[in-house]
Amino acid sequence: MIPKGLGGVWAPAITPFRQNLSPDPERFVRHARWLLANGCSGLAAFGTNSEANSLSVEERMSLLEFLVANGVSPAALMPGTGCCALTDSVRLTAHAVGLGCAGVLMLPPFYYKGVSEEGLFRSFSEIVERVGDARLRLYLYHIPPVAQVAISIPLIERLLKRYPQTVAGIKDSSGDWNNTKSLLDAFANTGFDVFAGSEVFLLANMRHGGVGCISATANVNPAAIHRVFENWREPDAGRMQERIAATRAVVQKYPMIPALKAIVARASADPEWATVRPPLVELTAGQCESLAAELNAHGFTLVT
Amino acid sequence: MIPKGLGGVWAPAITPFRQNLSPDPERFVRHARWLLANGCSGLAAFGTNSEANSLSVEERMSLLEFLVANGVSPAALMPGTGCCALTDSVRLTAHAVGLGCAGVLMLPPFYYKGVSEEGLFRSFSEIVERVGDARLRLYLYHIPPVAQVAISIPLIERLLKRYPQTVAGIKDSSGDWNNTKSLLDAFANTGFDVFAGSEVFLLANMRHGGVGCISATANVNPAAIHRVFENWREPDAGRMQERIAATRAVVQKYPMIPALKAIVARASADPEWATVRPPLVELTAGQCESLAAELNAHGFTLVT
Repeated sequence: MIPKGLGGVWAPAITPFRQNLSPDPERFVRHARWLLANGCSGLAAFGTNSEANSLSVEERMSLLEFLVANGVSPAALMPGTGCCALTDSVRLTAHAVGLGCAGVLMLPPFYYKGVSEEGLFRSFSEIVERVGDARLRLYLYHIPPVAQVAISIPLIERLLKRYPQTVAGIKDSSGDWNNTKSLLDAFANTGFDVFAGSEVFLLANMRHGGVGCISATANVNPAAIHRVFENWREPDAGRMQERIAATRAVVQKYPMIPALKAIVARASADPEWATVRPPLVELTAGQCESLAAELNAHGFTLVT
Repeated sequence: MIPKGLGGVWAPAITPFRQNLSPDPERFVRHARWLLANGCSGLAAFGTNSEANSLSVEERMSLLEFLVANGVSPAALMPGTGCCALTDSVRLTAHAVGLGCAGVLMLPPFYYKGVSEEGLFRSFSEIVERVGDARLRLYLYHIPPVAQVAISIPLIERLLKRYPQTVAGIKDSSGDWNNTKSLLDAFANTGFDVFAGSEVFLLANMRHGGVGCISATANVNPAAIHRVFENWREPDAGRMQERIAATRAVVQKYPMIPALKAIVARASADPEWATVRPPLVELTAGQCESLAAELNAHGFTLVT
C-alpha cells in the first residue's frame, strides 16, 4: 500500500448490471479505465452510488478481483467494505488489503439506529484488530442522510488515538459544509485526509486543508472536476467550481444512481448500462430525455 | 410447509455469542427449546432482536441448520431473510424454504432511503420469482423506526394480487396501533396474518382479527404472553394484558437486546449470554442490577 495520504478526485464507480441483474465485470473494468484516464485519481468502488449494499460479499470480492486482474492498479482503489455484520466487514476489508488496495472506505454498521459512540468504536476497532494488517488504511464514511448512523468527531479522535497509522481519513457525505469545516479544523493538520462527499464543496475543501472529493458525479464529469482539483490555487478556480456545481445541480434533480447510469448508457449507446438493482428503479424514457436536454443546454457532453 | 396461516406468540429468538463474538449454536438451541416449551408457537429467528443484521449470511444459515438438526421443528420457524442485497435475500429465503420452514419474515432492502413503492415491489417480487418455490410463505416485516423503509398498504395490495398464495402476512413493528388497525381493516378478513410487533398490542390485535404477536420480550416472558393469546376472549384478558404490558415497560427502559440477554444471563447463571456484537453494547453492572430489581419488584421471575 502507498503511505497514508491520498488525494484528488475519486469516483464511487457505478456498478453495471446485465438485464438479468447480474453484475457485469467487463463493463465495470471499461468504466474504471475510462474514469482513471479522464481525471480520477482513484476509484472508491462499492460506495453508495455503486449500489454496493445491493451486492453480496461474494459479488463485491469477485468484481474487485476482476478489476485488479485486468490492470486496474490497487493503488487507485479504495473499495467500500463497511457492512451491517462485523464478519462481513472483516472479510471484505481483509480481502481488499490482501489485494493491495490503497485504502478502504468504511460505513459504520447501519441497521441499528441510535447506537452509542462506544458501540461504533468497538465496531471499527474489532475490524482493525481482526484484519490485523499494518497495510490497512481506513477511511471513515460519514453519510448520515443514508446510513442514518453518524461518525462523530469524538469517535474519530478515539480511533485516531488508538490506531494512528491505520485511520487515514474520512469521506464527509453529510451535505453540510459546516460539518466538513469542523472535520478540517479538527484533523486536517494531522495528516488525516478529509474528502468532500461531493464536488460542490471541492474548492472550499481544498482551501481549508482537505485533499479532494469522492463524488457520485465524478462518474460522468471527472475531467472538469479534476481541473478544479488541479487548479484550486489559480485565480479562475472559482469560475471552474461554479461550472461543476451547476452540472451537479442538473443531475441531482433526478434520482442520482439511475441518472448516472442513464447518462453513461446514452453516451455509450449501450442501453443495458441503465439497469439498476431493486429497490432502485431506472429513469423513465421521459426523464432520460429531459436529463439529456438539460445537460446539453448546459454545454455538458459526455464522451466515453 | 404448513398451509398459509400461522398464529400465536412467536419470539425473535436472541442469538447467543461467545466472548470472542462467534455465534454459539448450543446455547441457541437450548434457548429455542425453552421458548417452545414455555408458550411460544414458533421462533422468528434472525429478527431485529436476534442481531440478525450483525450476522453474515453463512452464520445465519449455519445456525438455522443447527436448530433443525437438533430437533426444532421447521414448522415452528419463521427466520428473517430480508437483506440489503437481493442476492443475499434470495439465498437465505431459498435456504429457509428448503429446510421446510413455516415462513420467512422479510425486511425490505433498508440501505437506500426514500425508495419508491415500485422499487420495493420489484424487490419482493424478484425474490419470490427467483426462489420459485410454491412452499414459500412470505411475511412482510414493517419496522420503520429501525429499517427506515416502510411497507405501505398499497404495496401489500400489489404483492397480494400478484402472489396471493405466497404473501401470507405481516409483522407490524411500527409501534403505532393505528397502523396495525389499518392493516387489520384492510387485510384480516382475507386470511392475511397480521402479527402485532409487540405484546403491548396483543389483545387489541386479537380482538380486531389479528393472529398473535412476534415480540422481543417473548424471549423472557413467553408463558404470560401466551396466556393472553390463549385467553383473549375471556373476561380477565384485559387484566392479563395489563400485566404483560407492564413487564414490557420495565424491560423497555433499557436498550432492548442487551437487556434481554442480561435477563437470560442472570436467570441461567451464565454471564457469557450477555455478550452482544458491536455496534451494540452490553448493559453495565449497574443497569443489570436495577433491571433485575425492577423486574423483581414487579413480581417477574425468569425461570430457565
